[in-house]
Amino acid sequence: MSSSLKAGFIQFAPILGEPETNRKKSIELLSRASEADVIVLPELANSGYNFKDKAQAYALSENISESPFIETLKEMAGINNQFIVTGINERDGGKLFNTSVLIGPEGILGKYRKVHLFLNEFDFFEKGNMGFPVFEINGFKLGMLICFDWIFPEAWRIMAMKGADLICHPSNLVLPYAQQAVPVHCMVNRIFAITANRYGTERKVTFSGRSFMSDPLGQTLCSAPENRDDVQILDLNLNLARQKMITPRNHALNDRRPDQYHFMNQSIDLPE
Amino acid sequence: MSSSLKAGFIQFAPILGEPETNRKKSIELLSRASEADVIVLPELANSGYNFKDKAQAYALSENISESPFIETLKEMAGINNQFIVTGINERDGGKLFNTSVLIGPEGILGKYRKVHLFLNEFDFFEKGNMGFPVFEINGFKLGMLICFDWIFPEAWRIMAMKGADLICHPSNLVLPYAQQAVPVHCMVNRIFAITANRYGTERKVTFSGRSFMSDPLGQTLCSAPENRDDVQILDLNLNLARQKMITPRNHALNDRRPDQYHFMNQSIDLPE
Repeated sequence: MSSSLKAGFIQFAPILGEPETNRKKSIELLSRASEADVIVLPELANSGYNFKDKAQAYALSENISESPFIETLKEMAGINNQFIVTGINERDGGKLFNTSVLIGPEGILGKYRKVHLFLNEFDFFEKGNMGFPVFEINGFKLGMLICFDWIFPEAWRIMAMKGADLICHPSNLVLPYAQQAVPVHCMVNRIFAITANRYGTERKVTFSGRSFMSDPLGQTLCSAPENRDDVQILDLNLNLARQKMITPRNHALNDRRPDQYHFMNQSIDLPE
Repeated sequence: MSSSLKAGFIQFAPILGEPETNRKKSIELLSRASEADVIVLPELANSGYNFKDKAQAYALSENISESPFIETLKEMAGINNQFIVTGINERDGGKLFNTSVLIGPEGILGKYRKVHLFLNEFDFFEKGNMGFPVFEINGFKLGMLICFDWIFPEAWRIMAMKGADLICHPSNLVLPYAQQAVPVHCMVNRIFAITANRYGTERKVTFSGRSFMSDPLGQTLCSAPENRDDVQILDLNLNLARQKMITPRNHALNDRRPDQYHFMNQSIDLPE
């Protein structure tokens, strides 16, 4: 594995119901990120987020294999010789998923479907059904989570246990907590994360901007402003994500005690 | 459940090899905490921490049912009509455990044995073998974790799934990370925590003080200085720990997707 990776985020404000505007905006911002090896766009970057009903969500969805948005990103990934992660409103048959797609210079490498839906997303999307895949790229391992997934420690843990070095995290965050929490998920799992958030307001929902990158020690490496376009790229030393020894005798993952964790396996239904 | 609970921590520097000094110090500090309903002492408060060898660890261990230290705390819990949580070097037959004991006005209510040992503790202690018990007290639920357990999200999650409102966390922290991480464990699980740390130096190991309390929104409610005795007590609104709805449609625990978490069950052995 090359020890250093240029990785970053693109923060912008996709416009609800204007996929062509969003596609062109993505080209503009990706052209400012040509030096990045890995660049992450926000959740639902093609369609916008706050659909007024299922019909609108459906009308704005795209089959990944026929999406002008994805075709454009494939072109940009080829031109820039880079990996692009983007959120997309994915249509699969008659079903919609809140999906993140991994695109490389040679085309689509894989996708992840948001496991933990947020608020009104239950009205539009199916729950993710592909678990938490991890992709090996140029000797490092990349996983994807989407927005509200951030609150579930299981998601980060599974990614780390599968060997992910870097989590790409397209987001449309509205709550103010992820900026505090994601660095800690990175710390306890000793991984990197890139949270590419959006900003702006859609039908009274305001997104929080402040995209950021976190390292395996729980540090916030950089942070975007609250409400304007931004592109930031950093050199990440991914070797740090392979150093799982917290002390000479403590390993972040091997010290787990699954024999004492049996309660984790249970599905419970707690009172609201 | 009464909505309000007076809870807090005692921070001090137990002296290695001087159990009688530590016992008397605990009386002095507990007498300053008489108003607390729940008060937490540091890890291994009876013995000190950094034993030079197994023989010393053994010599400083106590059987809980015959411990002058625990007898004293039982007296104080009766006098103050309160619950006391303390770390103790526990002897059980020929084995030692790094244990936390819960004592009420009527006597011992239960214990927890540290599941995740740190550094040289492997030379002295058996790994905890009692899982993560939760105790119901006056209508609220209390769990215990010890020091390095803080880094394992599984421990916090299991406690929350068992209904714990408050985690009492006796500690002898040396690393600077828990003060950042514990509030996030509280946030994602919507629970309270009290981290009672020690300070001082023992045989070249320096402890970090800065005991603290965290709430279900990830806020640090109060914090002790780095290197002196301290007693802090706050009113905690434990009802907040029962409000698991993050949005009107999202529950912190019921939104888990165990069907997508199967990888969590695996025991893996990753390279160091």
